Amino acid sequence: MNKRAALTVLAVMISAPAVAKTWVLTSAELAVDQGNWKISSDELKIQDSAFSIEQKVLHGGKQEGSKIIVIHSQSGLTITLSPTRGMNLLRVEGFGSRMGWDSPVKEVVNPAFINLESRNGVGWLEGFNEMMVRCGYEWTGHPVTADGQIYTLHGKAGNTPVSRLEVDVADAAPHEIRIRGLIKESTFKKADLQTLTELRYVPGSNSFSLHDVLTNHADYPHDYQIIYHSNFSTPILEEGARFLAPMSGISPFNDYAKAGLKTWQTYAGPTKGFDEMVFNISPLSDANHQTLAAVINKAGDKGAAIQFDTRQLPVLTLWKNTDTLKQGYVTGIEPGTSYAYPVTIEREQKRVKQLQPGASTAFDLTYTLLHSRDQVTGVRNRIEKIQGETKVDEITTPMAKE
Amino acid sequence: MNKRAALTVLAVMISAPAVAKTWVLTSAELAVDQGNWKISSDELKIQDSAFSIEQKVLHGGKQEGSKIIVIHSQSGLTITLSPTRGMNLLRVEGFGSRMGWDSPVKEVVNPAFINLESRNGVGWLEGFNEMMVRCGYEWTGHPVTADGQIYTLHGKAGNTPVSRLEVDVADAAPHEIRIRGLIKESTFKKADLQTLTELRYVPGSNSFSLHDVLTNHADYPHDYQIIYHSNFSTPILEEGARFLAPMSGISPFNDYAKAGLKTWQTYAGPTKGFDEMVFNISPLSDANHQTLAAVINKAGDKGAAIQFDTRQLPVLTLWKNTDTLKQGYVTGIEPGTSYAYPVTIEREQKRVKQLQPGASTAFDLTYTLLHSRDQVTGVRNRIEKIQGETKVDEITTPMAKE
Amino acid sequence: MNKRAALTVLAVMISAPAVAKTWVLTSAELAVDQGNWKISSDELKIQDSAFSIEQKVLHGGKQEGSKIIVIHSQSGLTITLSPTRGMNLLRVEGFGSRMGWDSPVKEVVNPAFINLESRNGVGWLEGFNEMMVRCGYEWTGHPVTADGQIYTLHGKAGNTPVSRLEVDVADAAPHEIRIRGLIKESTFKKADLQTLTELRYVPGSNSFSLHDVLTNHADYPHDYQIIYHSNFSTPILEEGARFLAPMSGISPFNDYAKAGLKTWQTYAGPTKGFDEMVFNISPLSDANHQTLAAVINKAGDKGAAIQFDTRQLPVLTLWKNTDTLKQGYVTGIEPGTSYAYPVTIEREQKRVKQLQPGASTAFDLTYTLLHSRDQVTGVRNRIEKIQGETKVDEITTPMAKE
Repeated sequence: MNKRAALTVLAVMISAPAVAKTWVLTSAELAVDQGNWKISSDELKIQDSAFSIEQKVLHGGKQEGSKIIVIHSQSGLTITLSPTRGMNLLRVEGFGSRMGWDSPVKEVVNPAFINLESRNGVGWLEGFNEMMVRCGYEWTGHPVTADGQIYTLHGKAGNTPVSRLEVDVADAAPHEIRIRGLIKESTFKKADLQTLTELRYVPGSNSFSLHDVLTNHADYPHDYQIIYHSNFSTPILEEGARFLAPMSGISPFNDYAKAGLKTWQTYAGPTKGFDEMVFNISPLSDANHQTLAAVINKAGDKGAAIQFDTRQLPVLTLWKNTDTLKQGYVTGIEPGTSYAYPVTIEREQKRVKQLQPGASTAFDLTYTLLHSRDQVTGVRNRIEKIQGETKVDEITTPMAKE
Repeated sequence: MNKRAALTVLAVMISAPAVAKTWVLTSAELAVDQGNWKISSDELKIQDSAFSIEQKVLHGGKQEGSKIIVIHSQSGLTITLSPTRGMNLLRVEGFGSRMGWDSPVKEVVNPAFINLESRNGVGWLEGFNEMMVRCGYEWTGHPVTADGQIYTLHGKAGNTPVSRLEVDVADAAPHEIRIRGLIKESTFKKADLQTLTELRYVPGSNSFSLHDVLTNHADYPHDYQIIYHSNFSTPILEEGARFLAPMSGISPFNDYAKAGLKTWQTYAGPTKGFDEMVFNISPLSDANHQTLAAVINKAGDKGAAIQFDTRQLPVLTLWKNTDTLKQGYVTGIEPGTSYAYPVTIEREQKRVKQLQPGASTAFDLTYTLLHSRDQVTGVRNRIEKIQGETKVDEITTPMAKE
Repeated sequence: MNKRAALTVLAVMISAPAVAKTWVLTSAELAVDQGNWKISSDELKIQDSAFSIEQKVLHGGKQEGSKIIVIHSQSGLTITLSPTRGMNLLRVEGFGSRMGWDSPVKEVVNPAFINLESRNGVGWLEGFNEMMVRCGYEWTGHPVTADGQIYTLHGKAGNTPVSRLEVDVADAAPHEIRIRGLIKESTFKKADLQTLTELRYVPGSNSFSLHDVLTNHADYPHDYQIIYHSNFSTPILEEGARFLAPMSGISPFNDYAKAGLKTWQTYAGPTKGFDEMVFNISPLSDANHQTLAAVINKAGDKGAAIQFDTRQLPVLTLWKNTDTLKQGYVTGIEPGTSYAYPVTIEREQKRVKQLQPGASTAFDLTYTLLHSRDQVTGVRNRIEKIQGETKVDEITTPMAKE
């Protein structure tokens, strides 16, 4: 008898009380392991919305055994994420546009083939091609050797296979879809940080939300850091594309970025030799602590916006990597608890947060794919309103030297 | 046609001459690979004993692809071990008690997801949750950088997938079960140490034995070290639990453990801020070179004992990790050739042993789950008898500084 | 329904226009993943030649999940290579002889279980047992820490799973077989070197060719290095076996090899304590830039020869590892762009080559298993002809200190 087939039967369908159907695709605890799998609105007898949710197991090269989930909404977005790679979002497509970029890394690299400590702590670059990577939570930022160990680039969550994976479809219209994945950073004596990530999407919509809850399961307080490394390229990013966010101040990450400070609001086209410029931003928010950051195209009819809560994610990094297309022409809009400096600097400058034993903290972000002049104008107006009369302080000196 | 199903058929059942049936579950050499698999006393037409032996392939998180073997004896012990993790024993349950503990690491981590060199050589902690881990054989102990390389915490055997795995069931009552696994530490120019581990269990019994044979397959002498890192917690470990072992002397591993030297015989309950204290013990043995070490509960009606041969394993480490339950409230009783100091110190102090080309050496240990006052008293009496009139030398100074 | 079975159906058979049939066994891009698979000349209705091509998935130990391809020609060679290990050639057998050797590493180690940076950059040794490993292309040679990172022994290509794997069989006699594998060394910001390797074999023949094309897919020039680390042992290598190659000069790699300079032309039998001696050779070539290097047995009726182009591979390393059989009695004949010094030395001495953006470069080598006195004499004559009147300069001083 076939073992994998037998396991497949174990895939559990739980009917949550009167509100949603839930499928458990992976559970280390319950020994559930779903391989290739698909449901559709048709199968669920849903008539007012057309969508499918599919899990695929990938093969070949360094993506051997990696899994992806594809949420396909006929009139909305197609969202692709990877449970094997920390629930990272690979790409989001729809409305003639997309969120995401083209990295020279084409495969969905299985973390089994990555040594994060390699190349002096930047092994993470061997798998980096996502529209959004969670950089955290045990640490984040550029690599540094401290406390007798190497803190590797952007931490481990984004290279951690999911311990539990669940799919919800709400019974009632508009049939909201939720994908939950549990990412464990549990090491004896070191950490027991667990993040229950959740992606929420209403079929047909041009936006989706993340609701991630980080819990410190240990009996001691533990530091944490997180950067939501969100990356956009063509067709939004182009020469003359603009970056929009309400802010009290902006400063160059390092000396190289100084030269780009005056033009932080606009983007260059693909530019050989540009490499990358990074800027540290202090975001402003509205009365409800909500803020927005966006990249919009030159014509002002395409864009991508991220809404987040500055109590949860108080700082914002702008990454302009407008090098050539093949090198990965891309901009990162990165809400976080920290800037991208090494953890040692983030500690000195008091941006590293701490969770008490048993305590949880949530991170809520809403991503919107803007596909009309009106939508772009709407976001621009909201940002201008939050900015109000506050003048942007363009600080010429980097706040730290790596 | 299904490939895994086809392979399954290859699982080989060899009838050993008149004494036992043997199943080969894994063989790199013979291309045998059994996935989920089970036999039971019923299927074997055995009527005087009720047991089953099962192999399961695990999924989810970092245990993707890990295998476990569960020996279940209806009136005796349930022993769970992992071929993927060097035949380590995960837990042993029965008689209303257990051997093992609760690590914050819950998954049976596939070594493909562990970088032993990470965190400055303590990547081993990302998978540590076993009742018994073989720490060796190429090296063991705390990490150290020497000879231009890092000797990682507790070596590699415990994170090495088994190259050959066999299950025996004796034809004659009491139908002894043997599980053999071959662990290879073979690296061109560096080592060819191979350990044929064997677990022996008679269904219904409250004890089992290990018989491990380490062979140096190289043409040059090779150093080896081994610590049988055996770990116990509730319901045996508790405030007022006691550690018993015949010894000529005991000393603190480091300055921090000095404070615990006077109370080495008893355990604290779960204690926030305790972290760990380690003690080095020189065991005494009987005329047959056998000795015993045990942890017993406060009431003296539950315990776990390890019998071993001091010619094979001349030293004993006591690890008191009586921190909170969530941190992993646990004590280690660790017979070995070495203490837990880095290999550099163990070399200086002449505890590193050597195997000549082609030579083998065996390690025999018997673990007993004590579940009555009589059994505990029996062990206590044997230990007292070996101790005899010899006074325990409580040495206040650690024998080395790391 | 079984997922692997479903995937199997995806294996694509493409009929190339009128010249060959092509099977795609692996494609990360097309989501093709073939497990165990076989075709034979019988199934293809080929009558003038008897051969089979088989892919097997291996299991057990550290070879869990590794794939091998076996080309078996009834009257010719049996060639075994591993797509999981960078299309490395494991062994080539036939005509009562073989190319290859016996490493203490017996398994076809899945790179998921190897940390190339371990043991101070020589983790590569934990998987080394091949007849031919591609050492490159991002870097090669002995490990060194430079530019703030470790350049691990012999690079990463040989431990990279293939991203695309295709098998061709020519329609017309003599039905040449081609196995193509794409090896990607693609890391954001670091490299996008891709090598399309191709092995070409005519069934019945005693020789095969490699045609590898390395392309720099990045928009910036990139350094590359390659050593075709080709390894031979019994029954060719023995006491009195000879090394043959036309050369202008030879020098010891290091001080230890100085003692062996005068006897570079002959081999010792298995010799305890020999370890290894390495020599740097400047090959001479014919008017077409072709050269040959060979090892032949004492009797002069068995041998292995490699033909290569000195414009592509200008230098040659001779590795004499005539230690005991169990240690891996073996000689390496290693055409390359570089000697085996660390990349830092190779840079200083101007042997590191560079590829412009989008540029490709090819490497062509022909391996022949010599199995008669005539064949050996033929190779010897060709080598003597290329050598001509040129005297071999035996340089006593190593060209660099590591």
